[in-house]
Amino acid sequence: MIADNIYPFDEWEIREPRFSPEMNDRNETEFSIGNGYIGTRGTFEEETDLYHNGTYINGFYETMPIVYGEPAYGYAEKSQTMLNITNGKRIKLFIDGEPFDLSTGKIISYERKLRMREGYLSRSVTWASPSGKQVEIKINRIASFTHKHLMAISYSVRLKGESAEIKLISEIDGDVRNEGAGHDPRIGSPLKGRRLHLDESWADETMVLMRHHTRSSGLSIVCAMQNILKTELPYTVESSCDNMKGSVCFQLDARSDQEIELVKFIAYHTSDNGNDKSLVQRGVNSLREAVQLGFDQIQKEQEEYLARFWYRSDIEIDGDPALQQSIRFNLFHLLQSTGTNGATSIAAKGLTGEGYEGHYFWDTEIYVLPFFIYSTPEIARKLLEYRFSILDKARDRAVVMSQKGALYPWRTINGDEASAYFLAGTAQYHINADIAFGLKKYIDITGDNSILKWDGAEMLFETARLWADLGHFNEDREFCIDGVTGPDEYTALVNNNLYTNIMAREHLRFAYRISLELKKTDPAGYSSLSEKIDLSEKEVEDWKTAAENTRIPFNKELGIHPQDDTFLDKARWDFKGTLKSKYPLLLHFHPLVIYRYQVIKQTDLVLAEFLQGQFFSLAQKKRDFDYYDPLTTGDSSLSACIQGVMASAVGYHDKAYHYFLKTSRIDLDDVNGNVKDGVHTASMAGTWISLVYGFGGMRDYDGKLSFSPRIPDTWNKLKFKLTVRDTLLEVNISKDKVVYNILEGNELSIMHDFQEIRIKPGKAVVRSILP
Amino acid sequence: MIADNIYPFDEWEIREPRFSPEMNDRNETEFSIGNGYIGTRGTFEEETDLYHNGTYINGFYETMPIVYGEPAYGYAEKSQTMLNITNGKRIKLFIDGEPFDLSTGKIISYERKLRMREGYLSRSVTWASPSGKQVEIKINRIASFTHKHLMAISYSVRLKGESAEIKLISEIDGDVRNEGAGHDPRIGSPLKGRRLHLDESWADETMVLMRHHTRSSGLSIVCAMQNILKTELPYTVESSCDNMKGSVCFQLDARSDQEIELVKFIAYHTSDNGNDKSLVQRGVNSLREAVQLGFDQIQKEQEEYLARFWYRSDIEIDGDPALQQSIRFNLFHLLQSTGTNGATSIAAKGLTGEGYEGHYFWDTEIYVLPFFIYSTPEIARKLLEYRFSILDKARDRAVVMSQKGALYPWRTINGDEASAYFLAGTAQYHINADIAFGLKKYIDITGDNSILKWDGAEMLFETARLWADLGHFNEDREFCIDGVTGPDEYTALVNNNLYTNIMAREHLRFAYRISLELKKTDPAGYSSLSEKIDLSEKEVEDWKTAAENTRIPFNKELGIHPQDDTFLDKARWDFKGTLKSKYPLLLHFHPLVIYRYQVIKQTDLVLAEFLQGQFFSLAQKKRDFDYYDPLTTGDSSLSACIQGVMASAVGYHDKAYHYFLKTSRIDLDDVNGNVKDGVHTASMAGTWISLVYGFGGMRDYDGKLSFSPRIPDTWNKLKFKLTVRDTLLEVNISKDKVVYNILEGNELSIMHDFQEIRIKPGKAVVRSILP
Repeated sequence: MIADNIYPFDEWEIREPRFSPEMNDRNETEFSIGNGYIGTRGTFEEETDLYHNGTYINGFYETMPIVYGEPAYGYAEKSQTMLNITNGKRIKLFIDGEPFDLSTGKIISYERKLRMREGYLSRSVTWASPSGKQVEIKINRIASFTHKHLMAISYSVRLKGESAEIKLISEIDGDVRNEGAGHDPRIGSPLKGRRLHLDESWADETMVLMRHHTRSSGLSIVCAMQNILKTELPYTVESSCDNMKGSVCFQLDARSDQEIELVKFIAYHTSDNGNDKSLVQRGVNSLREAVQLGFDQIQKEQEEYLARFWYRSDIEIDGDPALQQSIRFNLFHLLQSTGTNGATSIAAKGLTGEGYEGHYFWDTEIYVLPFFIYSTPEIARKLLEYRFSILDKARDRAVVMSQKGALYPWRTINGDEASAYFLAGTAQYHINADIAFGLKKYIDITGDNSILKWDGAEMLFETARLWADLGHFNEDREFCIDGVTGPDEYTALVNNNLYTNIMAREHLRFAYRISLELKKTDPAGYSSLSEKIDLSEKEVEDWKTAAENTRIPFNKELGIHPQDDTFLDKARWDFKGTLKSKYPLLLHFHPLVIYRYQVIKQTDLVLAEFLQGQFFSLAQKKRDFDYYDPLTTGDSSLSACIQGVMASAVGYHDKAYHYFLKTSRIDLDDVNGNVKDGVHTASMAGTWISLVYGFGGMRDYDGKLSFSPRIPDTWNKLKFKLTVRDTLLEVNISKDKVVYNILEGNELSIMHDFQEIRIKPGKAVVRSILP
Repeated sequence: MIADNIYPFDEWEIREPRFSPEMNDRNETEFSIGNGYIGTRGTFEEETDLYHNGTYINGFYETMPIVYGEPAYGYAEKSQTMLNITNGKRIKLFIDGEPFDLSTGKIISYERKLRMREGYLSRSVTWASPSGKQVEIKINRIASFTHKHLMAISYSVRLKGESAEIKLISEIDGDVRNEGAGHDPRIGSPLKGRRLHLDESWADETMVLMRHHTRSSGLSIVCAMQNILKTELPYTVESSCDNMKGSVCFQLDARSDQEIELVKFIAYHTSDNGNDKSLVQRGVNSLREAVQLGFDQIQKEQEEYLARFWYRSDIEIDGDPALQQSIRFNLFHLLQSTGTNGATSIAAKGLTGEGYEGHYFWDTEIYVLPFFIYSTPEIARKLLEYRFSILDKARDRAVVMSQKGALYPWRTINGDEASAYFLAGTAQYHINADIAFGLKKYIDITGDNSILKWDGAEMLFETARLWADLGHFNEDREFCIDGVTGPDEYTALVNNNLYTNIMAREHLRFAYRISLELKKTDPAGYSSLSEKIDLSEKEVEDWKTAAENTRIPFNKELGIHPQDDTFLDKARWDFKGTLKSKYPLLLHFHPLVIYRYQVIKQTDLVLAEFLQGQFFSLAQKKRDFDYYDPLTTGDSSLSACIQGVMASAVGYHDKAYHYFLKTSRIDLDDVNGNVKDGVHTASMAGTWISLVYGFGGMRDYDGKLSFSPRIPDTWNKLKFKLTVRDTLLEVNISKDKVVYNILEGNELSIMHDFQEIRIKPGKAVVRSILP
């Protein structure tokens, strides 16, 4: 893996030390910046050797009718695609009429850095134009975390040698399209043509604004820019705007070594209203605020914001700078990608590319949420609030699917089901339980019960009642859930997928418990809620009955749990006869072929035994892991981290390390060759899971933390922090010992290797690690 | 059912006694004529109140890329749609400038008849124009069985009362489109726009010709017409042709009671060559031949052809004229729809409409073929030859599906898989065994072994080897077939569907047996074939091993066979809670909902026990029928006939009769409301199956005929004929006895109620039927 690395192992930076146009597709993704609302790919301002110059707003999408070869009742009707919006970052530089373009002239020095500690992208170039004019350029690009509607670019130019005419053209460009999609189903369906329709545009001297609406989804957006030229030299400025593009052009005669800085502020505002004229004022206000603050202040606030973030979330790995770099890269991109307004979530590719159409999946709750719960719980809460915000749509979907309650969409932006292949989409009913699992973990760890009142209980109950309605009791009075697909998308439409059943069971138990608690603690609130959703005592008792009798398939002969009722009946996939080039299997075999065999796309039963590990003995986990791990292709990036965690748990430390390597630099090293379409946010969060739950050996069943740490031989130290209620716990693991320390907050009771320890603030507790 | 009937119960005619524009959609289908090559809907020449004026050539199709919401490896890439071709039947009549149009003026008398005994469509109308000119019109329309490329129309006009100017415009029209498709998956995907591209056209005095090619599939077609006006009056004639349309216009001053007859011959020729100029000469030749023959001779030949057909195939039901009419209607349409050139087959809707895109399914071998085997074996052979003609494509498909041998497409015209929903398409691997079953029955009954040498053995072996490759042995050494869909499309992607397994088993056995026989009888031929397809001794022995160990699931507790490994684990569908308006379920429930329950679209296990009945005791059949019949919705028209046959077999005579009524007039009475899209050819053949196998109680395992007849109480007699080798056997069943009589050929040994009888020519054998 490390052989493929193209960046030096700077601990806090991703540094591209030379101009690498051949890498531009993946670099555009990796050098993306974002603040959870705006995201923009790392494409150069001057757009040299473009792959795809995308800018996105979280939750801003366009719809198209989904076309089916053979439509059927209840199929998702419209696609939702995160839209490539008005491009605000373009700045063109001309020196004596020659455009700055790295593919011409001569590059004297070059460096691009994603500065993860400070939260911005910078580039330094010394370049000679074809006619020999030399220029130093320094660019910093920020998507502000403290001013979510704002991006800012500082673009400074310094001539070296003889004087020249400098022209700087700053643009916003409405002539944008989404990237087309090929035959790879993982990239998703394309939006045809330009989807933004101009409503108004204008330019004053240095400000340009364009307001658009989307052709089909009926959303509107404004993109506005303000440009300030900082120079002591006289200059002229002209601005213009047409249907497609607005620009501000500065022109001056520059002399050697005199710095000219163009500061560009770009504001985005969006609205559900298809003709929202108020967006214009909001755009202008944001720009005014930006001008008042100035670039330096925005940069300073950004650094402060990131400092706070890293203080609670940073992980240190001593002994492996490549991994140290990648874990920070992953956490940084998670922060950049995650919606924090309660109306958005985190897309499978974040805000860095158009893979998976910008959809939100179960990845949010099962992979990403734990990181935020333990580092930035206020963001975790916003992710759950997003689910509450689409509860009505989940209720509608349940009706279409002939069920009571609410059924969450397998993939969505606006809350409608957008999966065009139901076997690996809607059939994954486990999404309901995944969300409930996330809610429970949030409450268990943060202690924030208030979330239940604010729609949490309603969502919990509505999603639980779907299970009771969906399942049935077989002749042995087992509660069965038939005709579903589990996380493993290489096995479809099965009865009693263990993952689904156990997650549903715990969902029902949790809902039952919460209903009892609320009835006690808030009888009026509970009664008003149960009236609202027509929830009877009997129905709640039925949840308990269903949970207590849920079928958990077990094969006595093999001593293992079958992944589902028929998984073990099938032939094993011929792994030996399958060429490496035939992976991922889904690109080389018809689904019918894949479904016929014991072959697993991504961790499924093993994931169940991780998330619900309290119900399985270590010996059982080991037997199951031994059976399923060789069948698991890892053709999904969601797989390796969990297989690694469970390898750790059952004592396969080399394997765990191997899986960790596979997970941790999947994006930095473009392991799957598809980083051009965006980063893999779930896998990025999987790195965190691997470190904390895997090498840290943490478990947190019902909110009770236990640790059983062990780090790889090549490392000297693994240090991470966890926010648990109002306590900040530091866990510092070295080869032979672990130090638990409370940095903030109150004392905490945890387990270390089956022993309870009570940690008090300021008094580090040391425990040794047995080899 | 009978209450819905709109035609008088003429035994040999479908007669529309009054102009019924409100019925025009279904009437266009029911009054279709065809000859297995050309088919044209019963739309009027003048096109009053048009629903869809389709004309089709069997096997002539257009392709379009199939669009998937989420594409995947191995999906069918192109649709194939039977194309609505150049319309040749249009004739416009003007009386003193007023167009003949039944929606204006006054209808004095009207009658339309499908004359099934003679093989043509006729219409008689007496009509007064809005200005009061009265005219008698008689039209006969023929698609010639003896001249497959020819249609002919005799259009005679007789003025009543004062003189008037008569204008007759005969047209061919290239401005044609296919009918659009809505959300009903049974209608299939539409072809957008005009798909015929004009290559050449010309008009001489009375002849017009247009040659087109299809835009995407690369086929070409010529449509040519010749027009002859028969009158003693002087007339003028003018012809013209533009890009869209060619016409010949006759004009004359007519007097009362003088007959004017326009004879129009229409010739169609098609070619796989996208620019086949020779089609022009072939079209002209056909027209010349037609002119030489004249309309009367063509009509005479048609009557003779039909007389021969009916002599061997007619079924008489004494005591129920409605059923008598419908059985003839059904057999007539089967004859009209079936390709006889060895390169085409019979579409699900014949040549009468665009439902199911004109695709051929397993319907051909399992439903339609037996009728032709027993009545017109030369056509049966042609249907099998069609399968041989697409063997190479079936081999290609097997490669795509990662299998050895050949996998026939679930639905196709040109041999490529055209199913856009693989769960109810490609997953129905049983198609291979269905075809082999048809081949075996053909050989068993006709004794025509020569078909094996002519590609039959090659197809048989290539399709058999797919099974051996597809299946695997489980731990109990049972041969299992996983991940398939059986005939019941309300249950998908299962392991060991009993129908599939037993049909595959018999397929393997038959292939094994034939390989032994050929090795003995034609060692050189066998050796050259096995070399060609690389078939080893071991592989053939493996077929035997697989067949001998095929898993046939059985549930001891219930004493029944499960439809598949998990069928009985699922909950039963809530039939009581399902409104009548919610059927067919597929239009009201998501597939995931339907798949989750014990609910059956169409006969599946019961069909297996019909086709392979020798392997099941009567008691077993009864137990299985009792279990599955209540679960069977009959949402497919393929269901009722088989459920009826098996109801007869297990002694449920009322139920059998009920099912028969449901089957027999499904098209005449438009039971499902979709006759506008074409007749249901499999169900039509199902009527024959119901009568011969059901009430006749015939079985023909391994070619040995047995009977156990019993007719419904309301009937006096059921008489049918069977061609067995060169013998024509008549079976004449009345309430208390059956008379077996050989009308042609040699003596025959049959079983009657478990007793062997030897029937000699000319010596009828009478057996009594016990109540």
